[in-house]
Amino acid sequence: MHIFSSCKKPAWPCSMGLLDTPCLLLDEKRMNLNISRLRDRLLSAGVGFRPHLKTAKSIEVSRRMMPTPHGPATVSTLREAEELADHGVTDITYAVGIAPDRLPRVQTLRSRGVDLSILLDSVEQAAAVAAVSDPADPVPVLIELDCDGHRSGVKPDDTSLLVSIARTLTPAAQLRGVLTHAGESYEAKGRAALIAAAEQERMAAVMAAESLRAAGWACPVVSVGSTPTALSASSYAGVSEVRAGVYVFFDLVQAGIGVCTVDDIALSVLTTVIGHQHAKGWTLVDAGWTALSSDRGTATQAVDQGYGVVCDESGSPIPDLIVIAVNQEHGIVARRPGAAGDSPHLPVGKKLRILPSHACATATQHRCYHVIGTGGNDVTEVWPRFSGW
Amino acid sequence: MHIFSSCKKPAWPCSMGLLDTPCLLLDEKRMNLNISRLRDRLLSAGVGFRPHLKTAKSIEVSRRMMPTPHGPATVSTLREAEELADHGVTDITYAVGIAPDRLPRVQTLRSRGVDLSILLDSVEQAAAVAAVSDPADPVPVLIELDCDGHRSGVKPDDTSLLVSIARTLTPAAQLRGVLTHAGESYEAKGRAALIAAAEQERMAAVMAAESLRAAGWACPVVSVGSTPTALSASSYAGVSEVRAGVYVFFDLVQAGIGVCTVDDIALSVLTTVIGHQHAKGWTLVDAGWTALSSDRGTATQAVDQGYGVVCDESGSPIPDLIVIAVNQEHGIVARRPGAAGDSPHLPVGKKLRILPSHACATATQHRCYHVIGTGGNDVTEVWPRFSGW
Repeated sequence: MHIFSSCKKPAWPCSMGLLDTPCLLLDEKRMNLNISRLRDRLLSAGVGFRPHLKTAKSIEVSRRMMPTPHGPATVSTLREAEELADHGVTDITYAVGIAPDRLPRVQTLRSRGVDLSILLDSVEQAAAVAAVSDPADPVPVLIELDCDGHRSGVKPDDTSLLVSIARTLTPAAQLRGVLTHAGESYEAKGRAALIAAAEQERMAAVMAAESLRAAGWACPVVSVGSTPTALSASSYAGVSEVRAGVYVFFDLVQAGIGVCTVDDIALSVLTTVIGHQHAKGWTLVDAGWTALSSDRGTATQAVDQGYGVVCDESGSPIPDLIVIAVNQEHGIVARRPGAAGDSPHLPVGKKLRILPSHACATATQHRCYHVIGTGGNDVTEVWPRFSGW
Repeated sequence: MHIFSSCKKPAWPCSMGLLDTPCLLLDEKRMNLNISRLRDRLLSAGVGFRPHLKTAKSIEVSRRMMPTPHGPATVSTLREAEELADHGVTDITYAVGIAPDRLPRVQTLRSRGVDLSILLDSVEQAAAVAAVSDPADPVPVLIELDCDGHRSGVKPDDTSLLVSIARTLTPAAQLRGVLTHAGESYEAKGRAALIAAAEQERMAAVMAAESLRAAGWACPVVSVGSTPTALSASSYAGVSEVRAGVYVFFDLVQAGIGVCTVDDIALSVLTTVIGHQHAKGWTLVDAGWTALSSDRGTATQAVDQGYGVVCDESGSPIPDLIVIAVNQEHGIVARRPGAAGDSPHLPVGKKLRILPSHACATATQHRCYHVIGTGGNDVTEVWPRFSGW
């Protein structure tokens, strides 16, 4: 009965209590609702959708997220692109700035029939791409824009740099458009701030695209997105496609921002109680940072959820119980600082579920999803995850 | 030339510049010096050594750490124990509190000839172990002690609980001794504090063992250890064995504590420059938290090293350059806050090496070690890592 620890596939369905812990659980019903919510919103707005598959890193989840079995898709590593290509996905944007020595892998994917576009934000990179791009198959390029100071990208009003990059690419490579990501929306507080972040993201992309068009480039792709802005935008005017990834599972950071509720979170880590420090109100569990990650994304939010919210085996949160500390294979579960009352007694051997602070980070720590099917609380399937670069 | 991203094994040696990034580098020469340092210290003190293999999770590294090819070894998961057993290790302590439903896996390992001992700190667990232990092959048990309030364990002066646990185990299971880990030594500041933490750890274990002996139990094993205390203790009197793990690689947290120098760190992440925000002095690299982890263990130390210290390709730190922020696949490299002068220009495509905040956490993000052989700066071998539970 304890043969599941390496994502082996015994006979399913399987009661959760028989799984080796810690392991990653995926509630298919909640996931399907999350997927429908964003898809319906974008469909009714008439804007394209290119889901980011870096959160899921799973063929089975990706198929449920993408508009068609062939894409479109966004990835954060070439490994993700290669895995998707192996499974028939042919329309992929690699949304991390290109390192020139990665271009051979880009070209191999393109030669396999994948319409793979790449991202850059400097003349230096554009020259490297142009130097190796085959005029018979010009590599499609998106210019990354910095809409909010979060990370990389050209300032959207730096028309001179945008045009220099476009000129450097042409004609060996092919300018396909602009792309931006409102990473600062993760810090947004309240509905008005989310709508403003979305509008800032949209305006940055539309402004840069218009500058490029005015200078003579077609710029068909105007790509924006983050889960908070995708679910909050009041307008997608001028946008050709929206990207988002973590919306598929949601997590405590997204709940803290206010774009989902804790009840929408589809991902959790199943864990077992292994001890107590009764005098301190601590319960020790077998989910440490190897299972949960060290992510502390809610530390700066109004409600600090520690390393995760503790639920019973059915997935209902136990009031005010969170993971307050993690070591490699230990989690310390206790009541939220300041909460009234005592910790419930959770005996050794009891199974609990921990909702993740940051779904991308928690999922990365696991090799597979144990899928809780739509019919109940049993695990009905195991879906492998890919990883690496 | 870009076929190494999944730890495949092309012809070695291989120049570092040909590796796909990010990837994990292990400097064999530094590792060997780190291994010798602790081994020689413990040998000359005449105390036993049971290295903790949770940091390395590699057969090749474990063989270099263990006193013999068969052990002794400490592990943090049964998966580690199973991997080691597959490679001939027969003397293993599983040093995380036992969950009763893990006992079948423990017994399977014991039936394969592995002298596997387990850890617990409650009568509840002792009863569960006694209930399934085979009197013909009594499971050897160590009682975990809480020497410093860090995590789990019986208070060393709680003789009543120690004796109750021993009574509950006997005769079905076998009390083998006591074990403690000075987890709080990671917060120690200065040599005197380290020596005091080591002495507190030793005294806790020796006191509990003597109480048990006075009550009639043999208690042959008195096991202590953490990297900071193992390298600082002024006495091992009454101790039968010392455990330590991260000493094999060291990291910035250990350098901050003062038990190694930055130059001793054997582990690093090879990364490539993918962009800049020149106005901010930022260099973007392709090592985010998937490659470095989100560990911020130096945040509370005198020198905050962010998510890692940035070195050139040969492994020499670039003055005051650290990773100040990480996203999933992006690291932001900048000068330490307050440092004088400008950031050096690191062109797109340049390779850098990042020293880890916490070696256990960074290594966990990777499937293999790219080993820089003792003869130079080339990668000469790839050693796989195991993971999971």
